[in-house]
Amino acid sequence: MKKHLVLAGLSILSMTTLVAQSKEDFSPSSLNQQGKAFPQVNSEGRVRAQLSAPEANRVQLDIGGVKYDMTKDDKGIWTGESDPQDPGFHYYQLCVDGASVPDPGSLYFYGAGRWGSGIEIPAPDEEIYALRDVPHGILSQQRYFSNITKSWRRCFVYTPAEYNSNPYKHYPVLYLQHGSFEDETGWANQGHADIILDNLIADCKAVPMIIVIDNGYAFAPDTKGPFQGMVFEDVLIQEVIPMIDANFRTIADNKHRAIAGLSMGANQTMRIAMNRPDIFRNYGGFSGTANYPSSDVIDPATFLNGAFSNGQKVNELYDVYFLSIGTKEGKPFPESIGAFRNMLDKQGIKYSFYQSPGTQHEWLTWRRSLYQYAQLIFKN
Amino acid sequence: MKKHLVLAGLSILSMTTLVAQSKEDFSPSSLNQQGKAFPQVNSEGRVRAQLSAPEANRVQLDIGGVKYDMTKDDKGIWTGESDPQDPGFHYYQLCVDGASVPDPGSLYFYGAGRWGSGIEIPAPDEEIYALRDVPHGILSQQRYFSNITKSWRRCFVYTPAEYNSNPYKHYPVLYLQHGSFEDETGWANQGHADIILDNLIADCKAVPMIIVIDNGYAFAPDTKGPFQGMVFEDVLIQEVIPMIDANFRTIADNKHRAIAGLSMGANQTMRIAMNRPDIFRNYGGFSGTANYPSSDVIDPATFLNGAFSNGQKVNELYDVYFLSIGTKEGKPFPESIGAFRNMLDKQGIKYSFYQSPGTQHEWLTWRRSLYQYAQLIFKN
Repeated sequence: MKKHLVLAGLSILSMTTLVAQSKEDFSPSSLNQQGKAFPQVNSEGRVRAQLSAPEANRVQLDIGGVKYDMTKDDKGIWTGESDPQDPGFHYYQLCVDGASVPDPGSLYFYGAGRWGSGIEIPAPDEEIYALRDVPHGILSQQRYFSNITKSWRRCFVYTPAEYNSNPYKHYPVLYLQHGSFEDETGWANQGHADIILDNLIADCKAVPMIIVIDNGYAFAPDTKGPFQGMVFEDVLIQEVIPMIDANFRTIADNKHRAIAGLSMGANQTMRIAMNRPDIFRNYGGFSGTANYPSSDVIDPATFLNGAFSNGQKVNELYDVYFLSIGTKEGKPFPESIGAFRNMLDKQGIKYSFYQSPGTQHEWLTWRRSLYQYAQLIFKN
Repeated sequence: MKKHLVLAGLSILSMTTLVAQSKEDFSPSSLNQQGKAFPQVNSEGRVRAQLSAPEANRVQLDIGGVKYDMTKDDKGIWTGESDPQDPGFHYYQLCVDGASVPDPGSLYFYGAGRWGSGIEIPAPDEEIYALRDVPHGILSQQRYFSNITKSWRRCFVYTPAEYNSNPYKHYPVLYLQHGSFEDETGWANQGHADIILDNLIADCKAVPMIIVIDNGYAFAPDTKGPFQGMVFEDVLIQEVIPMIDANFRTIADNKHRAIAGLSMGANQTMRIAMNRPDIFRNYGGFSGTANYPSSDVIDPATFLNGAFSNGQKVNELYDVYFLSIGTKEGKPFPESIGAFRNMLDKQGIKYSFYQSPGTQHEWLTWRRSLYQYAQLIFKN
């Protein structure tokens, strides 16, 4: 009897230790390549990776800025797991004896300046970007030669499910931009912009609209600095918008055009929106503003050539002015967006503000921001 | 004088040795990620890869079925190169201490059952799939839920450049399939089907057509063997074609429908074309036939339920019957395609046959096959 009690005690102790380390309910990530068992995710948001590397001395899982050592079994297979991650999408990689490489088990996404592994931690509100049994729009790749950059470029165009069965109907257009070290593939692959709109339109929460997703990196020939020779505004206004208006059934006026972007894209698109109220009457800035990275008090007389100096005029020029941020975002985003909001308030400029609960400067913040923003635009 | 002669001799000898190893005219592969210097290709078709792996003991370049040892410099950067490769597209990977991983420098492609690295060796006829300053069509992603497989699937739809500016014109449709361990991304990413058609249409060599690229792996629920429960024909005929005819301006008859595929896709699509002459009057088999992998003499009385037993009827039922192969393809392709052609000849069945010079069972064979085939269909 005494022996039995002791064993039971040990058993409870060892179970408690296991549970404290990680809950054993891992299942393959929704972003795995077809048929791949790893990486896996558990209900705590931990990521478990696995790699066959029989001759390696050290293999690590590199996610969220932390490298987690993996351990080798007698068959040369390394397994390791991370601390709990926030819900949503995260870039990650594996390190094999000092080489940073994509995980052969995952699908690949462009971000952080490279194509690499991505993982999805289930979120409580994942229904907003889940593939549901609703009519689905089409995502199209449109190539074009830019005479401004003298290079081939491409954009993706989302047309709503009803587009092809309404050959005489014209649609408003949202121009939607990625962040720094990302490209025109981000909003569909990581952002699920097409699925978010399919769901919103099916639920009658957003009006059917076209979305155009281009690459915010556009340089004048022979300039390639981080922001030197940036000509995205010219490419967008002079080349992309006329092409879209020619090839798709758009309503080609500023009331039926919106522009939004995330992080660097929020900064870029705010400048474009303020420069060209004749083109855009709707703006969305997700996790970013044009005063980035400053948190200084903004002087509306000088900021963006005085675009905000007359608050009443701004209220007249724009139908929807939208800002957002994740509640877990770090410096300088809360501070610089806060400084921008203070300026808007002081100028009496009306705007919508959305805070994504529990998310950092990452894609779940931006999926939710699009979900909110798309419900506001083109409604009056 | 004598010393000078000896030195000159040595110099020539060492240069000869260098040239025999590899010509020093390497440049970044056209399939590199933006800004990545490696992998590189030289004019002999050698591939030079590079990877930072300071702690690794052995790094290899794995291409064309051969692993080439790379060597480490004092900064921990490994460099190595392959023997000359055939022109065209090849899958490859790096091996780091026994771990097979994608090269962080390349773009990624789905083939060999996984997303991995690809490299492009320039071909003498690369103009046929080069991005030229001609009007470009649109490549669209269409998601759909299959009630046959009970799963979400997607296809890509190419519409020619003129499609959106001719809102009343209807177009013929080519259904184009990938090979084994590939998927619906292959024909655009590796095959450049969209660019090949853009060029052919701009040069008035092919008629403007729609191309639909689906995934040939379609399984009845709860069956997942290599070919068990394969229901692709049902998905295509009952779900995909009606969806395409509903959503795009097609000419919905068999005369204006073609079906073609490569390797496994050639086998699949031949069966579909022969089963359903009411749906398709045009067939293309690139590097494959339905008698694969057999090289036995084919008995037309029994093969594919006697579909070829009446040669005259076959000639009447199909406008274009096209077969192709690369001249360097290995067993069993020349033998099984040869046996199939012998049967066609014996039955008096007319067909076109194209041989891609100097290529194996790889994508350059299939790009060229599409280039040939697309010029034949929908012309009468």
